[in-house]
Amino acid sequence: MAPGAVETAPAAIAALGSKLQNGSSNNQTFTLNETEKKQVDVVLRQFRCLIADLCEQFKGGHPGSAMGMAAIGIALWKYVMRYSPANADYFNRDRFVLSNGHTCLFQYAFLHLTGYSSMTLEQLKSYHSSRTDSICPGHPEIENEGIEVTTGPLGQGIANAVGLAMATKNLAATYNTESHSVVDNMTYCMIGDACLQEGVALEAIQLAGHWKLDNLVVLYDNNQITCDGSVDLVNSGEDVNAKMRASGWTVLDIDDGCYNVEGIVVALKSARDSSVNKGRPTFINIHTIIGIGSKVAGDAKAHGAAYGAEDVANIKRNFGMDTEKSFVLDKEVYDFFSDCRPRGEALEAEWKDRVAAFGASFPERHAEFVLRTKGQCPADWRSLIPAKEQFPTAPTPSRKSAGLVCNPLAAGLSNMIVGTADLSPSVNMIWPNKVDFQHPDLRTSCGINGNYSGRYIHWGIREHAMAAMSNGLAAFNKGTFLPVTSSFFMFYLYAAPGVRMGALQHLQAIHIATHDSIGTGEDGPTHQPIELAALYRAMPNLLYIRPCDSEETAGAFTAAIQATNTPTIVSLSRQALPQFPAQSSRTGVEHGAYVFIEDDQADLTLIGVGSEMKFAVEARDLLREKHNIRARIVSFPCQRLFEAQSREYKRSVLQHQRVPALVVEAYAANGWERYADAGYSMSTFGHSLPGADAYKFFGFTADKIAEAAAGLVEDVKANGLNSLRGEFRDLNTARQH
Amino acid sequence: MAPGAVETAPAAIAALGSKLQNGSSNNQTFTLNETEKKQVDVVLRQFRCLIADLCEQFKGGHPGSAMGMAAIGIALWKYVMRYSPANADYFNRDRFVLSNGHTCLFQYAFLHLTGYSSMTLEQLKSYHSSRTDSICPGHPEIENEGIEVTTGPLGQGIANAVGLAMATKNLAATYNTESHSVVDNMTYCMIGDACLQEGVALEAIQLAGHWKLDNLVVLYDNNQITCDGSVDLVNSGEDVNAKMRASGWTVLDIDDGCYNVEGIVVALKSARDSSVNKGRPTFINIHTIIGIGSKVAGDAKAHGAAYGAEDVANIKRNFGMDTEKSFVLDKEVYDFFSDCRPRGEALEAEWKDRVAAFGASFPERHAEFVLRTKGQCPADWRSLIPAKEQFPTAPTPSRKSAGLVCNPLAAGLSNMIVGTADLSPSVNMIWPNKVDFQHPDLRTSCGINGNYSGRYIHWGIREHAMAAMSNGLAAFNKGTFLPVTSSFFMFYLYAAPGVRMGALQHLQAIHIATHDSIGTGEDGPTHQPIELAALYRAMPNLLYIRPCDSEETAGAFTAAIQATNTPTIVSLSRQALPQFPAQSSRTGVEHGAYVFIEDDQADLTLIGVGSEMKFAVEARDLLREKHNIRARIVSFPCQRLFEAQSREYKRSVLQHQRVPALVVEAYAANGWERYADAGYSMSTFGHSLPGADAYKFFGFTADKIAEAAAGLVEDVKANGLNSLRGEFRDLNTARQH
Repeated sequence: MAPGAVETAPAAIAALGSKLQNGSSNNQTFTLNETEKKQVDVVLRQFRCLIADLCEQFKGGHPGSAMGMAAIGIALWKYVMRYSPANADYFNRDRFVLSNGHTCLFQYAFLHLTGYSSMTLEQLKSYHSSRTDSICPGHPEIENEGIEVTTGPLGQGIANAVGLAMATKNLAATYNTESHSVVDNMTYCMIGDACLQEGVALEAIQLAGHWKLDNLVVLYDNNQITCDGSVDLVNSGEDVNAKMRASGWTVLDIDDGCYNVEGIVVALKSARDSSVNKGRPTFINIHTIIGIGSKVAGDAKAHGAAYGAEDVANIKRNFGMDTEKSFVLDKEVYDFFSDCRPRGEALEAEWKDRVAAFGASFPERHAEFVLRTKGQCPADWRSLIPAKEQFPTAPTPSRKSAGLVCNPLAAGLSNMIVGTADLSPSVNMIWPNKVDFQHPDLRTSCGINGNYSGRYIHWGIREHAMAAMSNGLAAFNKGTFLPVTSSFFMFYLYAAPGVRMGALQHLQAIHIATHDSIGTGEDGPTHQPIELAALYRAMPNLLYIRPCDSEETAGAFTAAIQATNTPTIVSLSRQALPQFPAQSSRTGVEHGAYVFIEDDQADLTLIGVGSEMKFAVEARDLLREKHNIRARIVSFPCQRLFEAQSREYKRSVLQHQRVPALVVEAYAANGWERYADAGYSMSTFGHSLPGADAYKFFGFTADKIAEAAAGLVEDVKANGLNSLRGEFRDLNTARQH
Repeated sequence: MAPGAVETAPAAIAALGSKLQNGSSNNQTFTLNETEKKQVDVVLRQFRCLIADLCEQFKGGHPGSAMGMAAIGIALWKYVMRYSPANADYFNRDRFVLSNGHTCLFQYAFLHLTGYSSMTLEQLKSYHSSRTDSICPGHPEIENEGIEVTTGPLGQGIANAVGLAMATKNLAATYNTESHSVVDNMTYCMIGDACLQEGVALEAIQLAGHWKLDNLVVLYDNNQITCDGSVDLVNSGEDVNAKMRASGWTVLDIDDGCYNVEGIVVALKSARDSSVNKGRPTFINIHTIIGIGSKVAGDAKAHGAAYGAEDVANIKRNFGMDTEKSFVLDKEVYDFFSDCRPRGEALEAEWKDRVAAFGASFPERHAEFVLRTKGQCPADWRSLIPAKEQFPTAPTPSRKSAGLVCNPLAAGLSNMIVGTADLSPSVNMIWPNKVDFQHPDLRTSCGINGNYSGRYIHWGIREHAMAAMSNGLAAFNKGTFLPVTSSFFMFYLYAAPGVRMGALQHLQAIHIATHDSIGTGEDGPTHQPIELAALYRAMPNLLYIRPCDSEETAGAFTAAIQATNTPTIVSLSRQALPQFPAQSSRTGVEHGAYVFIEDDQADLTLIGVGSEMKFAVEARDLLREKHNIRARIVSFPCQRLFEAQSREYKRSVLQHQRVPALVVEAYAANGWERYADAGYSMSTFGHSLPGADAYKFFGFTADKIAEAAAGLVEDVKANGLNSLRGEFRDLNTARQH
């Protein structure tokens, strides 16, 4: 395992993709001088021992890949990436995403070495400790300096990276001019073997190739090891390079990824050089050895456990270090990286000059650009939302209402970027004169084209990637983009791991989820969500809002736009819904729930939700007419927003101390027990029938609901309100499981 | 669009993969005679008009691809597939999966034509009708004759198909002998453009190549259209054939997929011929025209809407049919398919002879095989589950307990097939002498190999495919396989769309979900489930069971194995849990909840769940010691099982009429409001800390819980039990959002 950097660098160049071959004059070269070679050698040795020490102290963590990837880190942070340790948020910085997030020590250690001030050696040592103020969690987290996105759930980091690269392309196409370039950063993404198995990554890889994101570089830490053993246990015979080429990527190979810093730098510089690598993202297949230097090098045992004192000593011996000393980082090592901070400051200063020059020539565009770099909304969004009077009064599908609200917003807000997982005709998110985000040279057979400044995204049938890549867009810089996704609500189950990561990272997004109940009809139980709302109502830092008509849809968007640290799912109907201009209220939505129809003499509160409000209102009429029972109605579009209200407000809305409450919703009742004494809900999967028939099939008729409600009121009259406590009643007996 | 079958058949042969080239004597040929050509022509014309009519009657549905794929259907059902319309469940039948499930009319119409007796013309006409007894739902459903799996959510059908092909390989390797072949069916899977975009399909494609499933054929209805437009909107420049070859598949091309029945038959026969196509699944790239014959042929408009009376008439004119007549299927068409039923009966009779001959030579193996074809458990599973006394009494992680229970089951039950998404070292599902499911020629670098009779599956880092492919295994024949999957609980969010489809289809499976709370520790919030249990507790027909110790884990498996129509998630801890041999009860688990520690004088019920039982028990002690409060404890591992109990049992367990209840669980409280008055739970995402510290960080200490409980009891003393109704209390104030 000799440090064969010099020997293998030419081989790496020889392996450059077809566009780089044939002796192009643009071929990159990069050679370390003798001093640098020695420095690199010391850094590699100390870095690897440091990682082993950091895992050893608390007997846990993931040392193997971080050790294997050390040379890659040197190439990136020392020689290639443009970033500013003094200002981690420097707008035009290159983005780095660690998709194999369990190797986080790799990134933490380089953040320390390159001079990110919060990443002290003491902090490094807090990895896996009990310190609650540690900025070295088990996977990188966006809250911490120098971390672009939170990673860990495999496959999603690379999808985030593709989103980040899209962000750059979009900003560049929107603001750069022939003579002014204010956004031109690269995105680098480190992946391991696992990311090439997760579906979300495979979806994102297709899209990066389709969009020709030549500002994206994926570095594949190819150590051929995962938890279970060698990768050929689960991926034998696949030619990954051929696959990546077939997906529109340039592929470069580095044979000795453990030591060949020069080769890696050459590959990275080639990838960046758009004159030779135009129109293709770059995949650098870097062969490394997991846990290099340890007794379990190259073995699955090297992946996710500390090596033990004996092997740590062995590692130190192998790397010529003192076995008695731990956490050794000599001055030589710090010196090696000491140019990173000033270099970054110079980069930022130079960029500021560029922005200023841009401002002098294009003051208006510059003004908007500055607003967006600050994450501020580039226009008055409130004025773009239609007033109640502007909505139709005839029955309207709420997916159509969403279009009425969202499309003027998208047209007017340059930070909004709206996409769909191949459901343009269904989700109504197309605004007049929308431009698609596409490579400008694309000429589709259907004739719909676009360019990089476009803000309408065809994601294809890739819901998970849509959500994860939207997180990348949102993470580019807080508030610079407001991603809007769209699909059928049911397929937000595919997207759920991405939606969750957005909520966890406090990344704002608006998810337009149409076809949101059994009312979706003929497509049947595979398309009819029953249990999915329970997930999103329980998910921390997410708003799941189910408006009942156009006015409430306006409220849902208002709440969503105001929630700058929180993603929102707006849950919408396929079918036409009656409009309730006299009752419905956008500000009511902002409170989560509100009194829809009051009645001081009420025997009962009916809670109406979304598409099923209609049944609550009809049942109320029937109760009065046929059962001589008076009901009040509460509209309840969002549990999370309601929870944030005062106890007084909650009591005034629900009045549970006075009357029983029955919630009407064609979902599983789980969670409604907090607000209601009984539910008229679903306990089975749905059924393929036209929407109205599906409702009927499952007992959702005003008649049956009124009857069930009357039974509840009778029960309360006989046994008292308090008899309801602890005995939530499932009153829909039509199709109980 | 001339019916160019004869002309293009040689081209199709020329396009056969490398193994089929070079004039192999095994090359398949297939030629229609003149009569057959005329018959095929009539069938194609009437079939396409029929589809247009079926969508037109209720003005909806998906006509386009079904029309485009007609020739493929003829090749499959008339000339290639081995099946028995008289007995749809004939064990050794070829399986057909319609992964592009929205094209269901394609399959329904062929089921009708080939003589599946339930699929009458009247039933065909019930598509999109209000008939609640329709067997023609908007997507194929497993309950109906001739349907192997329910499809619709894109990408999952192909994953099911790979699972079905695995099932064949496993059964063949287990029961076939050199002279006896009792299982040798093929699996055919139809996909559209969308399935090549969904991540779950891309995961499954990798695995099919890895396992060299040469009994699997994927037919790609390549019409280059999805809802948004042409596929190049979202997939330009990808060379799908190159990609499939790089993944270990044989690729065949059919240029004129709308008419070239001969070419498709040749390709299908080549794929089936293992002497020429050994060791590679086959991908047939069939170019078709969506909505062929209509005015919108080749356009996205042809995809998902009825064509309107005018265009339907136009279609009929184009196909030489009477524009005034609808649903025309001439006797000639039925005659063409009239051999399918007797041919199927003969196939089954011949197979029965084979099984009988096998039985004569290998009576014991035959006896087990017969049990498995009947879906009966091949051994007494109850005797394999350890008795309470056999479990350790020292603190034990419940993931380890699960191994103690499951591994003897897996060793003893030949129908159990156990897999993991690359977490073998973490999930403890390896039993002594387990054999991996692998191609017998595989030689991995880590030295772990196997063969097709193996019942331990390395799924790789592909949770979604693991769940969806396990559905395929389970669907091969009810009860023949009992799939067990395993991963971290958090990553059952990736798997969720597959888990849901299993629940929807009543397919039994056991999902081993470890690392199930913030107790998982250092990996941090990305790995700590908070809201996920809410999804699975709300999901119809699924058991989510969270045992608190080894004895309860035994109960969880007992319940799971008994639930032959229902998948189960067994939710387990990473960390060691105290054992409660004096309190815990496996039969208690079967009831969902039970009294763990009774106290007739109790002031309070503490509900303990899974890993957090420990805190409930400790808090109970502290309440008595420090607060002079007496608490009883209910263990509550499964809400769904508890819901199935009588009202009397529920009251006897919860005793809510006598005392307040506080649930202690480190999840979102959503849904517990049904059983408890207050929750000590989580309202934020987790935090990266060692497990015990994470609990502390979020207020999970006996001290704090006891204090909160005491406050609740005091409150009740002051204001009465009834004051709790409608005001569920979130008592964990440590880190409220």
